[in-house]
Amino acid sequence: MSAPTVSTPADSGAVRALVFDVFGTVVDWRGSIIREGDAMSTAKGWRVEWPAFADAWRAGYQPAMQRVMQAAASGDTAWVKLDALHRGILDTLLPRFGLDRLAPAERDHLNLVWHRLDPWPDAVAGLTRLKSRWPIATLSNGNVSLLVDMARHGGLPWDCVLSAELFRADKPSPAVYRGAAELLGIAPGELLMVAAHPSDLAAAQRAGLKTAYVERPLERGLDGTRENSAGQRFDWVASDFVDLAIKLGA
Amino acid sequence: MSAPTVSTPADSGAVRALVFDVFGTVVDWRGSIIREGDAMSTAKGWRVEWPAFADAWRAGYQPAMQRVMQAAASGDTAWVKLDALHRGILDTLLPRFGLDRLAPAERDHLNLVWHRLDPWPDAVAGLTRLKSRWPIATLSNGNVSLLVDMARHGGLPWDCVLSAELFRADKPSPAVYRGAAELLGIAPGELLMVAAHPSDLAAAQRAGLKTAYVERPLERGLDGTRENSAGQRFDWVASDFVDLAIKLGA
Repeated sequence: MSAPTVSTPADSGAVRALVFDVFGTVVDWRGSIIREGDAMSTAKGWRVEWPAFADAWRAGYQPAMQRVMQAAASGDTAWVKLDALHRGILDTLLPRFGLDRLAPAERDHLNLVWHRLDPWPDAVAGLTRLKSRWPIATLSNGNVSLLVDMARHGGLPWDCVLSAELFRADKPSPAVYRGAAELLGIAPGELLMVAAHPSDLAAAQRAGLKTAYVERPLERGLDGTRENSAGQRFDWVASDFVDLAIKLGA
Repeated sequence: MSAPTVSTPADSGAVRALVFDVFGTVVDWRGSIIREGDAMSTAKGWRVEWPAFADAWRAGYQPAMQRVMQAAASGDTAWVKLDALHRGILDTLLPRFGLDRLAPAERDHLNLVWHRLDPWPDAVAGLTRLKSRWPIATLSNGNVSLLVDMARHGGLPWDCVLSAELFRADKPSPAVYRGAAELLGIAPGELLMVAAHPSDLAAAQRAGLKTAYVERPLERGLDGTRENSAGQRFDWVASDFVDLAIKLGA
């Protein structure tokens, strides 16, 4: 992967609020699912391939979201909560990973592991420092209650929880990025989107937002692939949230 | 005023989240406007009747909201941010209070005093204690950016900022109360509305929410009138947020 490019060092004085992608950017979804899964299968004496399970669950998300967007475009379905998408994917995975032995209440509980994901080690310290200068909010395709539970679980100090659910549209739709600026009472160009995924940032850029790319090399594990950001330009590039705070002058 | 009635002591075990009215319930809008106004007119050497000004500004809100709701019903206008309603009222008040001497930027700044309202003395301690057991959120006709700025100003530890703006409808519309429960992922009967205004709680009750009435005798000043709550039944009645936390067992 080529290194991402920083445009001419941007002036953070024009920034009036920050919004954050969550899964992979703020929280370690893969490591969290593996840890909780390991604890569960140890307690039960089962052997489950949790890394493969986590990857398969996450991999099911894009196609599930695409199906909902296509159905919505043809007028069939409204927006669907990520909890419901996750549940549909989970139900297909249970037999494949020997988890159809779980009782109904255990399946319900497992589906909500996405509400209990742990932050990356730098996340709370970096967010706290950034919050001292700017309002900070989520901007995630996760539903509001998921993001609220996750913040309480991990101590994430959001000023505000913004979700695709509020706009009945998912990222990368421009309605989500522009809607966030509108709710925060600022222009798109005054809003800084922080994400570990170049495609999210490219969509934010098209909607007029400023962008900060934070590298999360371990999101998909030691051998995991990463989205290519070669040739893409961001206003800031940082190695973690504390580094971002320093680069923004917070 | 007769004392409000508490129904048979309700079981807080059925509660899964709390939402709060803000103006008058969490923050002292009248005292805050008077304090900021006094500081401004002292600096300028002006004499301004800030208590009457604050009362007139607040009194303009209900008629302004009614006009928007009527316009919306006839398809003329979408929802209007409270900031814009406040500005329309302010512009009519400026000459009456000798404030048309303010420069444009000073008028803009004064209009945003609603973003800088101070919490009642018990609010942060009570909210912090309640938050240790339940998710806590605003549920206000104030727009999102107003509520975010106010939380940062006063250190209000919300898990989530919910506003009429998200539903494009104002309290007392049932869409606001039910929409809050839906976003929090719970049933209306699992959501507790906290307010100092019996009419807000009556509407919450009709939408299926549980209710807690918190007395704020000084909201309209020492001689101010209060909404009558005689004969109305609430699930809890408390003298402030710390008292509410104790009564709910938080």
